[in-house]
Amino acid sequence: MTTTPLTFAPRLTVEQVEEGHDLAPKFDASGLLPAITTDFTSGELLMVGYMNAEALQKTISTGEAHYYSRSRQVLWHKGAASGFVQQVCELRIDDDQDCVWLRVKTTGGANCHVGYRSCFYRAIPLRDSYTGPADSLVWKEEAKVFDPAAVYGDAPNPTKL
Amino acid sequence: MTTTPLTFAPRLTVEQVEEGHDLAPKFDASGLLPAITTDFTSGELLMVGYMNAEALQKTISTGEAHYYSRSRQVLWHKGAASGFVQQVCELRIDDDQDCVWLRVKTTGGANCHVGYRSCFYRAIPLRDSYTGPADSLVWKEEAKVFDPAAVYGDAPNPTKL
Repeated sequence: MTTTPLTFAPRLTVEQVEEGHDLAPKFDASGLLPAITTDFTSGELLMVGYMNAEALQKTISTGEAHYYSRSRQVLWHKGAASGFVQQVCELRIDDDQDCVWLRVKTTGGANCHVGYRSCFYRAIPLRDSYTGPADSLVWKEEAKVFDPAAVYGDAPNPTKL
Repeated sequence: MTTTPLTFAPRLTVEQVEEGHDLAPKFDASGLLPAITTDFTSGELLMVGYMNAEALQKTISTGEAHYYSRSRQVLWHKGAASGFVQQVCELRIDDDQDCVWLRVKTTGGANCHVGYRSCFYRAIPLRDSYTGPADSLVWKEEAKVFDPAAVYGDAPNPTKL
């Protein structure tokens, strides 16, 4: 583990970015890129977060998932409060280097603030099985892993209407 | 398959959005939400795209992945040009309903415009294995599935520096 902030390569050509070995990430106008996190064993999509340069640097140097919390506007070491730390088994980057993929093992097995294993605990029926927007979602997890009230107390809920 | 545009439920309460059965998606200021696409069988992350309301409606009604192309600013039926159509086996939505997960089987097996199975064909080494931004990425796919020049011809490359 290094304490010096990691640097990234400058983006020089499309060939370098797509077909090269340089790490030259592209952050958006807000200084962020999306980070997609799946379970290393099952492949299940657990959550989608965002990273700024510091979060990506910390994730690389520590091997634990760090995000940037857009609602709280701070570096977010996932699990620092809840204990549900994500150990990164593999970190990948996409073709144009504006998105990363974390394959993780999560201490305690929960990743969603609502209490589920995954944030994606509901399915949308397709084609003729879709009966309209009301009362249509189907639950894909049987029970919550933890009780959010017990873990987060009265911290503000990040969901915005 | 319906030809009437599907409607979505209004977002009324956090409880309805997080714990209810209503489909009440939240599109951002640009009218988009991220769509995360994984391989139904392997769990591999294939691509990250964006959907507007029409793309989500078309995906639900047809069972084939539709995105909104931000670079071309059009509804994008994935595979319409290349033949690499994504059959959606399962479609999920996240806790606050501002992101969807597509679990797909792709005709022809390629999903990346560079020619690979997945857009995430390179890994970033972690901790002490990370030796710096230059020459550090590790290839995770051995060969391209197709030759982009043969499929796309001289169409503009979507990667921006």
